[in-house]
Amino acid sequence: MSENTPQLPKTALTPATHTAPPAKFSHGVRKGNLLQVAGQVGFLPAVDGQPPVPAGPTLREQTLQTFANVKAILEEGGASWDDVMMVRVYLTDVDHFAEMNAIYNTYFEEQGLKEAAAARTTVYVGLPKGLLIEIDALAVLG
Amino acid sequence: MSENTPQLPKTALTPATHTAPPAKFSHGVRKGNLLQVAGQVGFLPAVDGQPPVPAGPTLREQTLQTFANVKAILEEGGASWDDVMMVRVYLTDVDHFAEMNAIYNTYFEEQGLKEAAAARTTVYVGLPKGLLIEIDALAVLG
Amino acid sequence: MSENTPQLPKTALTPATHTAPPAKFSHGVRKGNLLQVAGQVGFLPAVDGQPPVPAGPTLREQTLQTFANVKAILEEGGASWDDVMMVRVYLTDVDHFAEMNAIYNTYFEEQGLKEAAAARTTVYVGLPKGLLIEIDALAVLG
Repeated sequence: MSENTPQLPKTALTPATHTAPPAKFSHGVRKGNLLQVAGQVGFLPAVDGQPPVPAGPTLREQTLQTFANVKAILEEGGASWDDVMMVRVYLTDVDHFAEMNAIYNTYFEEQGLKEAAAARTTVYVGLPKGLLIEIDALAVLG
Repeated sequence: MSENTPQLPKTALTPATHTAPPAKFSHGVRKGNLLQVAGQVGFLPAVDGQPPVPAGPTLREQTLQTFANVKAILEEGGASWDDVMMVRVYLTDVDHFAEMNAIYNTYFEEQGLKEAAAARTTVYVGLPKGLLIEIDALAVLG
Repeated sequence: MSENTPQLPKTALTPATHTAPPAKFSHGVRKGNLLQVAGQVGFLPAVDGQPPVPAGPTLREQTLQTFANVKAILEEGGASWDDVMMVRVYLTDVDHFAEMNAIYNTYFEEQGLKEAAAARTTVYVGLPKGLLIEIDALAVLG
């Protein structure tokens, strides 16, 4: 807060598995100890010259791929799921809540978290055709 | 930011009024001076062995209970409404905006804030059947 | 984190172009190095005694005005687009995504960012009649 505080750089996080973003935003950014992951969907790792392809039509396939995409960005910024404060889950259908929770629980049990689980908000919105879930995350490192 | 920075613990915030979360997330988490409250709805204080019950069918009943639920988590983490930077309000019906604002204003006048009111975003989404409002919040302590 | 940590004030950010908020929230708040911009829409600069008026009926008009409104709040708090970590874009129609991206790209190219572009999440929600876009933003200064 003093005038001597050094300027903190803001770094774009672009894992090798991700394409360049389709617009002027970053898949993730880190500045100081804060790391923000942009909304991720269930796209498979990028293939040069190909449009993005979802991992599959099912909620399970897309949710697990979305988790993998968020995790890749966290790791690119030197963070892990243990650093995540907030997970925002966007579903398209209220009837998907129970299944998403089951996938969510199993996934995070397998991650072997050492810290408290992140907070979470789940709401039901519109998403581009074929996409059933989108997730973003805020992390604090250190 | 140095290698000597001590590891900040991340603490789950679970007020006595809340059930264990229905999935592997926390009702709130605190790490350093950041506190994130998960999406809260208008459920009454938990009763052991009973499913959660909304405070009532009306927007007023649910909004006031949701505020109480957010506040309980803030207080569990040593914070108050004065520390809140951002309130996210999810409504299901655009026609509820004016009534929610009236409830919101009265509630926060009664809280006797000493600091500037938090920023806010209100959007209209789908929520599980019977729920009319969901709120989450980000706070900075200190 | 020590008991000697000085209390950080939380400051409301109300640019001259904005009306007093329609409810007990702030258009933006800053506390320490964190700045949160409330959900902005495409309202023209406020005119005393007049209700707010959108910049126009089109996505382009509203998006550019919304950007201007977010930027005014950032600047009121001593920040710029370069400090923004996260931009949340709320659209009402999936078919607006490509056009919004084009406007978004041109706008941020013109801003001459020196830092990495912010992360972003775009979802499709309901908004009050006549409004096509809402945007909020989280910034870290320093």
